[in-house]
Amino acid sequence: MSVSVKDNPSFELMEQFGHQTLVFCNDNAVGLKAIIAIHDTTLGPAIGGVRMLPYQRMEEAMDDVLRLSRGMTYKAAVAGINAGGGNAVIIGDHRTQKSEVLLRRFGQFVEQLNGRFIASLDIGTTPKDMECLQMETNHVAGLPKSLGGSGDSSPFTAQGVYYGIKAALKELYGNDGLAGRTIAVQGAGNVGEQLIALLREENAKVYVSDIVEERMAEVANKYRAVAVANNNIYELDVDVYSPCALGGTVNKETIAKMRCRIIAGSANNQLRDEREDSQLLMEKKILYAPDYLINAGGLISCYSELAGYSASRTAALTENIYEATRSVLRKSLSENVAPYQAANQIAETRIADMRKIKQ
Amino acid sequence: MSVSVKDNPSFELMEQFGHQTLVFCNDNAVGLKAIIAIHDTTLGPAIGGVRMLPYQRMEEAMDDVLRLSRGMTYKAAVAGINAGGGNAVIIGDHRTQKSEVLLRRFGQFVEQLNGRFIASLDIGTTPKDMECLQMETNHVAGLPKSLGGSGDSSPFTAQGVYYGIKAALKELYGNDGLAGRTIAVQGAGNVGEQLIALLREENAKVYVSDIVEERMAEVANKYRAVAVANNNIYELDVDVYSPCALGGTVNKETIAKMRCRIIAGSANNQLRDEREDSQLLMEKKILYAPDYLINAGGLISCYSELAGYSASRTAALTENIYEATRSVLRKSLSENVAPYQAANQIAETRIADMRKIKQ
Repeated sequence: MSVSVKDNPSFELMEQFGHQTLVFCNDNAVGLKAIIAIHDTTLGPAIGGVRMLPYQRMEEAMDDVLRLSRGMTYKAAVAGINAGGGNAVIIGDHRTQKSEVLLRRFGQFVEQLNGRFIASLDIGTTPKDMECLQMETNHVAGLPKSLGGSGDSSPFTAQGVYYGIKAALKELYGNDGLAGRTIAVQGAGNVGEQLIALLREENAKVYVSDIVEERMAEVANKYRAVAVANNNIYELDVDVYSPCALGGTVNKETIAKMRCRIIAGSANNQLRDEREDSQLLMEKKILYAPDYLINAGGLISCYSELAGYSASRTAALTENIYEATRSVLRKSLSENVAPYQAANQIAETRIADMRKIKQ
Repeated sequence: MSVSVKDNPSFELMEQFGHQTLVFCNDNAVGLKAIIAIHDTTLGPAIGGVRMLPYQRMEEAMDDVLRLSRGMTYKAAVAGINAGGGNAVIIGDHRTQKSEVLLRRFGQFVEQLNGRFIASLDIGTTPKDMECLQMETNHVAGLPKSLGGSGDSSPFTAQGVYYGIKAALKELYGNDGLAGRTIAVQGAGNVGEQLIALLREENAKVYVSDIVEERMAEVANKYRAVAVANNNIYELDVDVYSPCALGGTVNKETIAKMRCRIIAGSANNQLRDEREDSQLLMEKKILYAPDYLINAGGLISCYSELAGYSASRTAALTENIYEATRSVLRKSLSENVAPYQAANQIAETRIADMRKIKQ
């Protein structure tokens, strides 16, 4: 179109990111203001989290909802599931402004999208909140087990990261056995702890750090892992550094110190600067398993609910992360592109291919 | 909500106008950029025109889509039909940028709203375009008769204005007979001509003006009406001045010249300044039949399509404009509020009442 849409941030970003639909939801009586973004539904309904935060500037809300929904498209595509990418933000403080009526009104807006958007958990929303949405719409995932949902999805996130680690080991050493391998897990939260359990079961040597020292000591003790101070974790001479806490821990400063061979963890947005940090990692010959691929277990768990939840089906889909990670790393090495780029390209090719047969 | 949304024009206006949903539709491959606004669906699905214009600034598009959709809510509510208010804008030049694929892609977005928005004609779209939408969605009105639609709705618009005129006459004179009444019709277009035919059939004395002199002469001749120069129409000493062309013809300058007793016509937005001009009309004791009520015949015709089009049903619904106009004028006179305010209040009360029983 020759028309300028530069003065409207919605269309400008939608065009740039290739979004399909952006829905502004408003209800004055209830005080609801929410945005639902549907990025791409070529592969299936757009699954995405519902984030509730007291955004002070609408630009930040728009930025979140557009970037997160696009991220979900890529995550689902590269994980090999039949889902598209979406995301929603409810504008408000989840500690003080969340109520049944607000959530149910939002659920009505989700219902009106007729299954094109499947709402799930994100920052500021809980399985209990999904129960509220579910009173108004069936297009919800992340429900408690008592409602036929998947319940806590962290076991599958941990499982996916475990497969990602094994795939990277296979690529690097020709052998994915964990016995005797050294792995530094940063963050002993829900996912971190379950990952450590899986790794220790196969006799990997595990280092663990956590900013909460008590938690670190507890997990180290329980699984016979070695506790290390968080600041020292980057310098460990290990096979794998596994960031399972905050994002942005892989950056110019930390990469300079790193002595690991592989980075593979559950944290979101591990690279502070995708392009620059990938380049540095390639120069240091550190293999990076893209975060958004190997932490897809949570999404896979939600996706499994769509066809009636089964734990064994979810486990089987999560296992696909092993082959998917291998494909990404092989492509990265053979074509000399960064792993995140290889993953993006695989996702884009899959979507473009499937678009050809969706008429 | 305590959160500031002032930096986002979408939410700011949605909150001010009480909108429910605003959908941004984007398709890079097709070059589609469109906005669908759903103002209120308490009474029924939001019927609204699809306007295609080469908006240079997105603010103008937003302003159009939000104001027009709200206007439709009020129009439907006061006309007594079970429809809500919506509107859509496609950003582009309808002479050069309209194509089958663009319209059908837009139709898909309409389809995805699952019947909450019913697309109809507006500036820049034709019955032929509605046929294109209808290839992708059944949620279209204003279809040609050959597709089960209402075809040209102008006869019903003219009929509605005719009833509005009679209701005003009844209010003012206690008698709605047209024989011998003097009526100045401004604009001899589709609606104007059909209105003149109805008036002349009952032996009203009709004056007609049109900026196209040939057209004016033709219609004057055909119906034995008196042609008058457009600039002189305001000064005519007539019972009714009926603006059936451009909007804004009722303003400080023209009101000063007016010698009519009633204003009742089909043009949109007849008052240049609703509040001020209403006040001037009340001071001059000129009865104003609100434009958006008495020109509702077109909307009623679209609405009739929803349950399977029938001309007799449409005619019956259009006849309701008579009683609706009487109610508005009675309320205006008894409560000493401007007629457009009386109409707004009746619309708001109806919506609030029906909301109570919609659970």
